[in-house]
Amino acid sequence: MTQPETLRWVGQTDGHLELLDQTCLPTQVVEIECLTVQEVWEAIRVLRVRGAPAIGIAAAYGVCLSLRPILETDPDSPQRWQSAMELAIKACDHLATSRPTAVNLFWALQRMRDAITEIQSTTTACGSSRDLAQRLLREACTIHEEDRQQCASIGRHGAQLLDDLPAGSGFLTHCNAGALATGGDGTALAVLYALAAQGKRPHVFADETRPLLQGARLTMWELAQRNIDATLLCDSMAAQVMREGRVRAVITGADRITNGGDTANKIGTYGLAVLARAHSLPFYIAAPTSTFDLTLDSGDDIPIEQRPAAEITTSFGCRTAPEKAQVYNPAFDVTPAELITAIITERGIIQPVTRESVSQLVAD
Amino acid sequence: MTQPETLRWVGQTDGHLELLDQTCLPTQVVEIECLTVQEVWEAIRVLRVRGAPAIGIAAAYGVCLSLRPILETDPDSPQRWQSAMELAIKACDHLATSRPTAVNLFWALQRMRDAITEIQSTTTACGSSRDLAQRLLREACTIHEEDRQQCASIGRHGAQLLDDLPAGSGFLTHCNAGALATGGDGTALAVLYALAAQGKRPHVFADETRPLLQGARLTMWELAQRNIDATLLCDSMAAQVMREGRVRAVITGADRITNGGDTANKIGTYGLAVLARAHSLPFYIAAPTSTFDLTLDSGDDIPIEQRPAAEITTSFGCRTAPEKAQVYNPAFDVTPAELITAIITERGIIQPVTRESVSQLVAD
Repeated sequence: MTQPETLRWVGQTDGHLELLDQTCLPTQVVEIECLTVQEVWEAIRVLRVRGAPAIGIAAAYGVCLSLRPILETDPDSPQRWQSAMELAIKACDHLATSRPTAVNLFWALQRMRDAITEIQSTTTACGSSRDLAQRLLREACTIHEEDRQQCASIGRHGAQLLDDLPAGSGFLTHCNAGALATGGDGTALAVLYALAAQGKRPHVFADETRPLLQGARLTMWELAQRNIDATLLCDSMAAQVMREGRVRAVITGADRITNGGDTANKIGTYGLAVLARAHSLPFYIAAPTSTFDLTLDSGDDIPIEQRPAAEITTSFGCRTAPEKAQVYNPAFDVTPAELITAIITERGIIQPVTRESVSQLVAD
Repeated sequence: MTQPETLRWVGQTDGHLELLDQTCLPTQVVEIECLTVQEVWEAIRVLRVRGAPAIGIAAAYGVCLSLRPILETDPDSPQRWQSAMELAIKACDHLATSRPTAVNLFWALQRMRDAITEIQSTTTACGSSRDLAQRLLREACTIHEEDRQQCASIGRHGAQLLDDLPAGSGFLTHCNAGALATGGDGTALAVLYALAAQGKRPHVFADETRPLLQGARLTMWELAQRNIDATLLCDSMAAQVMREGRVRAVITGADRITNGGDTANKIGTYGLAVLARAHSLPFYIAAPTSTFDLTLDSGDDIPIEQRPAAEITTSFGCRTAPEKAQVYNPAFDVTPAELITAIITERGIIQPVTRESVSQLVAD
């Protein structure tokens, strides 16, 4: 991997989180240090770090930062045990408010909460803040490492699924579901990297992905780092590329998947799924099982983040719509399961996508 | 009409063309003077004036400008008659190279050529350049005035077609097919203006229309001038707006329509037509009969303009994709007739859209 890491923990329990600031790409490669919970919250909120798996990992590390003030002063004082616990739990609560749609965020924070509960239940009296910090950092690192491995597995399973396609095939993707969105090699892009590693020379058609242009800024940058052939197009050109027979499949990531397979992902994904169906192209979702929210029966129940109007009206510091223009700016849409050919997970392929097949693969 | 005119001829035969520079909207209302054929060519090329009917009219006036040098020196000299003819024909040839897709450009230039031929055949010996200039300006003004009336007729026919829809209905449109695209009130937007005039309170959902954002910059501006309710969205959000039941129909303009009804229009239109079909929504094209190219049997024969990659990679003066990114940037796509519910013209409605119904309404 030639590109800087999307995110990494630097140092020991009293260390900090380092993030590649994705708002600066592709023109600048800037790494920022997050020393506080609030800095992580802000980084997630304004999309310095984005992508469902990556924000889960970032949030987990963010919880670790909550103990920094205590570790700097009283790491071993039993008097601070209770406040350390409270700070960690408060961090979980706060980080959960950073963005609403990607379930990996809540899933990762739940694992951190479980770790807190566990240490609470196994510590007879007051423990040390240092022990809690170690336990939390271990959990966050585990989440990160698991994600790395899951990306690799998704890549393997996906490449196997697409094994029949000829070398040089075109694939359409939307937003960024690559290394920049995860702790590893990505989800949708991991599949294409695995194909590339097998000498299959995939050609990626990357939707620019308005309004924040994650496709143009991030996916094109990431693919260039890895020498993958890619063509950038505006979102409105996807149908034409399909019509011309230039892509063999559409593959995207996901932010939340219901127990029936309905999938929330970057706005525009639903339209691509409809277009893929109309052009008889397979439409694939690639996501780790942590992206599933088995408590939800329907995609209609997934909360959809509305983003500020300015993302559309004043793109890149330049006013591109009249003052007071009314704007619709949902960050995500939901693709119903019936439009999804298969979901590629680290545990294998869900195909066809039904309540039964999801349950079979995802439920423990 | 509260907005400045899209284009107008100022003065007599030795006058000039004044254009609203649409590349400056919505932040600045700038009118520019075109004094030479080349200035009109450039204005069309870089989209200072755009929209199939408007570029036809601009080109017609552009031909008139070819005679300015002679009118300024030797308007009545018979010696200059031949060179005046040649200059006018050369202007037609040159202006035809400004953009390739919209047929109204070639149609308007053909009318100018016919005027030249006519005066040539009716002038026994050498005429005066002044006479030629008068004839050309009369033809250009006629083209302009006809377009104005055609827009009004399209509005009337369209409003009648959509008469059954309840007040407050939503309509999705793409790019700008309004007053800014024509010599009158527009094509697609003329229909919505006619509905508004009847108290039907249409609510327009305007695709921003990447890469050049004609929807965000122009349609939203034009609708605001006329107090029409409008919501701006990214192109990738159109499917979601349809899914939510917020629009009752999709209506766009056209740049060239074949004898079978296949329609070239701004890139993204084809995808909208597929999406409209999938959501059981009617998809309408509104265009004057001058947009038909009856010499073409298939949409595949329509030449599609490829625009510079920089329109996508350096949006809004800011680099938004890596250097050297490979880009696909067709300015138009073609919607096959079978996806078009009806074509609204100044002569009436073509529905269903077939070779026969097109021929019946459009062929003289």
